[in-house]
Amino acid sequence: MTGLFVTFEGGDGAGKTTQAMLLQDWAVAQGRTVVRTREPGGSEVGELIRDIVLHHRGEVAPRAEALLYAADRAHHIATVVRPALQRGEIVIQDRYLDSSVAYQGAGRVLDSGEVRELSLWAAEGLLPDITVLLDVDPATARGRIDADDKPFDRLEAEHGSFHERVREAFLTLAGNEPERFLVLDASRPVDELAAAVRAKVDEVLSRSGDVGTRG
Amino acid sequence: MTGLFVTFEGGDGAGKTTQAMLLQDWAVAQGRTVVRTREPGGSEVGELIRDIVLHHRGEVAPRAEALLYAADRAHHIATVVRPALQRGEIVIQDRYLDSSVAYQGAGRVLDSGEVRELSLWAAEGLLPDITVLLDVDPATARGRIDADDKPFDRLEAEHGSFHERVREAFLTLAGNEPERFLVLDASRPVDELAAAVRAKVDEVLSRSGDVGTRG
Repeated sequence: MTGLFVTFEGGDGAGKTTQAMLLQDWAVAQGRTVVRTREPGGSEVGELIRDIVLHHRGEVAPRAEALLYAADRAHHIATVVRPALQRGEIVIQDRYLDSSVAYQGAGRVLDSGEVRELSLWAAEGLLPDITVLLDVDPATARGRIDADDKPFDRLEAEHGSFHERVREAFLTLAGNEPERFLVLDASRPVDELAAAVRAKVDEVLSRSGDVGTRG
Repeated sequence: MTGLFVTFEGGDGAGKTTQAMLLQDWAVAQGRTVVRTREPGGSEVGELIRDIVLHHRGEVAPRAEALLYAADRAHHIATVVRPALQRGEIVIQDRYLDSSVAYQGAGRVLDSGEVRELSLWAAEGLLPDITVLLDVDPATARGRIDADDKPFDRLEAEHGSFHERVREAFLTLAGNEPERFLVLDASRPVDELAAAVRAKVDEVLSRSGDVGTRG
């Protein structure tokens, strides 16, 4: 497989969208073709699934929720991400399997190892080349979301201790795979964070002999 | 757990709905409380999932399809089937994990052992007490579906050799678990089939000391 697969992880309000946009702008300016996408919901089928998971008014059973995220992932990876990587493009994605493990596994009632296994089955084993974890203390993130004045979805409506457990879960995942993860303090200035992300991408690209020639 | 969980399996056009109705009528006449349900789609969330799987116009990636069925199952078992069984009721269900294994595993591109494992994870290991397999040769079933004059869904539209592989897969599953399965030739008269189903249910109920006293 060629191309480069970069994911952004972190709680809501950490600044993932801003950093994904800045990385995209930079990569496009370098002459790269970039696919920017997200989970849940990065495909037409995915949008339908996302509607069920995030906006269904009743209760969704925990295993059903994990399986819906995995279904979205399976479709999205097979129809959007792998084809782009095979064309040698850079895929920049908002949330991937680390979110599933952090939110579903550590934050909820399911075993995090099982959730990871489920995700990897869905994605036929695809892991990102780089995962940027924008680490932010939940109270700071809360303030940013409030400032946006958007309606909250179900996950955002969960209370603070849940977000603290999610944060710890992300940091544990990053500690387990230091090669893949770049952990950044999301309270730093936006342009400093963007520069750190670019440096990591540059490093991985040059180590691999550039896009299109890896493995 | 108390109650009794009976599933009907077999290709489209095998007569599952008719036999499920007849069993329900008989059980209700015996003074039982019966929940009759189906997969996919036996809950509100399930109906939304069913819409995606059966009626989405584009292609759904094979693993995504399997995961959507599993999500429907997880929600349906947790919110409909287990609560009914715990109340000591009889659950009569049109299709369950054997359909997933037969259609997804044997009929499609996925490994049937993985599909079974996925289903069991979704259902937290719940297997039926009795599974009635209405075995019918696909050409006969086709004639019944044509007579109904209904529009076909995606699965019904697959061609004949697919249905032959599904039939073989069902028979193999039944052979692996002869205690759980009752295999009936679906071309027999409706009332003969109904009598055979009732006899099996009676046998399991009496062996278990009746509903509500098992396990």
